[in-house]
Amino acid sequence: MTTYDLALIGFGGVNRSLAELIASRGEALRAELGFGLRVVAITDLRLGSLMDANGIDLSMALALGGDSGSGGDTFARYGGSAEPDNEAVIRGCTADIICEATFTNPDDGEPAVSHVRWALESGKNVCTTNKGPVALRGRELAALAARQGVRFEFEGAVMSGTPVIRLARQMFSGLKLNGFEGIMNGTSNYVLGRMEAGLDLGEAVREAQELGYAEANPAADLEGFDVQLKVLILANELLGGNLQLKDVQREGISAVTPEDIRVAASAGRRWKLIGSARRTPDGGIEAGVAPRAIDLVHSLAGISGATNAVSFETDLLGPVTVSGPGAGRIETAYALLSDIIAIHQAAEGRGAAGSVQAAAEDGGLARV
Amino acid sequence: MTTYDLALIGFGGVNRSLAELIASRGEALRAELGFGLRVVAITDLRLGSLMDANGIDLSMALALGGDSGSGGDTFARYGGSAEPDNEAVIRGCTADIICEATFTNPDDGEPAVSHVRWALESGKNVCTTNKGPVALRGRELAALAARQGVRFEFEGAVMSGTPVIRLARQMFSGLKLNGFEGIMNGTSNYVLGRMEAGLDLGEAVREAQELGYAEANPAADLEGFDVQLKVLILANELLGGNLQLKDVQREGISAVTPEDIRVAASAGRRWKLIGSARRTPDGGIEAGVAPRAIDLVHSLAGISGATNAVSFETDLLGPVTVSGPGAGRIETAYALLSDIIAIHQAAEGRGAAGSVQAAAEDGGLARV
Repeated sequence: MTTYDLALIGFGGVNRSLAELIASRGEALRAELGFGLRVVAITDLRLGSLMDANGIDLSMALALGGDSGSGGDTFARYGGSAEPDNEAVIRGCTADIICEATFTNPDDGEPAVSHVRWALESGKNVCTTNKGPVALRGRELAALAARQGVRFEFEGAVMSGTPVIRLARQMFSGLKLNGFEGIMNGTSNYVLGRMEAGLDLGEAVREAQELGYAEANPAADLEGFDVQLKVLILANELLGGNLQLKDVQREGISAVTPEDIRVAASAGRRWKLIGSARRTPDGGIEAGVAPRAIDLVHSLAGISGATNAVSFETDLLGPVTVSGPGAGRIETAYALLSDIIAIHQAAEGRGAAGSVQAAAEDGGLARV
Repeated sequence: MTTYDLALIGFGGVNRSLAELIASRGEALRAELGFGLRVVAITDLRLGSLMDANGIDLSMALALGGDSGSGGDTFARYGGSAEPDNEAVIRGCTADIICEATFTNPDDGEPAVSHVRWALESGKNVCTTNKGPVALRGRELAALAARQGVRFEFEGAVMSGTPVIRLARQMFSGLKLNGFEGIMNGTSNYVLGRMEAGLDLGEAVREAQELGYAEANPAADLEGFDVQLKVLILANELLGGNLQLKDVQREGISAVTPEDIRVAASAGRRWKLIGSARRTPDGGIEAGVAPRAIDLVHSLAGISGATNAVSFETDLLGPVTVSGPGAGRIETAYALLSDIIAIHQAAEGRGAAGSVQAAAEDGGLARV
């Protein structure tokens, strides 16, 4: 039976959760999926890096760092290095698949873009949960993957492990996808819901921060930067666009007032931060993110709290909506697992329809 | 390029819409999907039957019967028979795929069960939009298909063309599916929504009938019989159950009063007719359909009007919900097209993971 060797780049919450999944249910996954998983390299800013072509002891690695970590220990103590050495590890390790879950600078997508590029250049498959490489360098990286004959998968870049990109690619064959609109940021959706319950913006944001939804600087969530990247990804990947970040208009929720919310409620409406894109009659794509007061019967009106959703506008079915978690360590680790399954299916000659590479080559999904 | 020859059994709204799709965008589908479609047999209660191994002229067939039909003409005028001759056509025609869209008796699933059986016995792939064969004879028919080396597909049996069965099979690999709950009948959901707006049950039902949602005898919708069959299908197909109809408890919405609805609303709740199934600790499956007053933040609370939705309870992602149309001629015709695409992918060696046959053989999807 096939075993895939993995390198985990970034050993924070997401890749830790993936390692826990492999450690706790690797055998069950092997029985269900028909392949095994083994981790042969890990790099992390705090822990350094470790390579072992025979497989790293995951219980050792998971005991390092994290909340239950053993002091200042690094991988140096286990034959590795106290420095992350990302490029050397990505290029030099024996992994079949690089699981990239570091961080991403929204301006240039680094360091994740370089991680992905190094992996593809050295002939390794990549799955990433980072929006940056896909949103800002998606076309270039997909073309590189195609030239190298490897896969570039990124389901976790939008709505964590909730199937969105792969769902649209595989479940809508024969349909024409005319556009989409979605609630793709849980923090801003939570804040708007709490404002509807009577809090003002500042109170709602503080509550979201206390619950761990919002970061210390919540601008990426509240001002629509996060959703802007996700809209860019979906517009390019699912509608065949070639948009740049500047082509996605952006407006956040900070100007929405309690009065706006009261007025909307009295008219049977509810404010939501909607990211959307649609084909225009001239063959282009119009994309943006902005707060909108939508009717309570709108397919996104009932998406509450930190839940995310995307509603696809199809010609034969009308709107089809998928909702689920938009974040979370385990939820995002599952996205990586779903990417690994897709890489396996491609290796077996399955799942080629609607593949990332095919889509990249023809400028997005061919549509009727 | 491959061309699949189809037999359309039942030439009412659904198969007519499929024929229209093939006639109007057959070339575009061929370019996108990599195969062509040709209709070589049609049977219909009113029009009789027609076979032509070289392909039936669809514009002729579509002009017969229907709203714009030409009087009492039948296929007899075009070299066919004025009688449907379903068994002879299904067994004797040259089709690769039988598209079954007749009607189904909820007691024994006939005549659709026989149509499916004749097709499988004669070595033909089947796609059906009928709940009966899947709900009442699913295991037997899937086993027959496996023995014959052909496919038995039925995405349209639940929520028309909205991907539900195939979505759960293909998008949730590596997850444990613990159960589901859904709004799977548009008529009853519409009626409950109108009762929330102030109508009583009778007024709401009459309105639904005027809009074409509810049939003259609305019992199948309002008393939960329709949802009961759908729950049975999903419980057996996705949770690996071997339930019979009697194992799915059934209660409709006819006992829900305006007072119930007012009380629920004042408590932040809303009545919905929920079909559900879940694994029990002893390894069994508990399944039923009943009206429930769910919290407004419940993932199904925002599903309004005739829209349908199923919320899957997964271990790693929590609830993931898909919503979309639950009925409609074109929407259901798309379900048949999606089944044909699945048959094509299986023929090419793709899409075998999560296949109907594999699931039937091991008693449902293998799950971690």
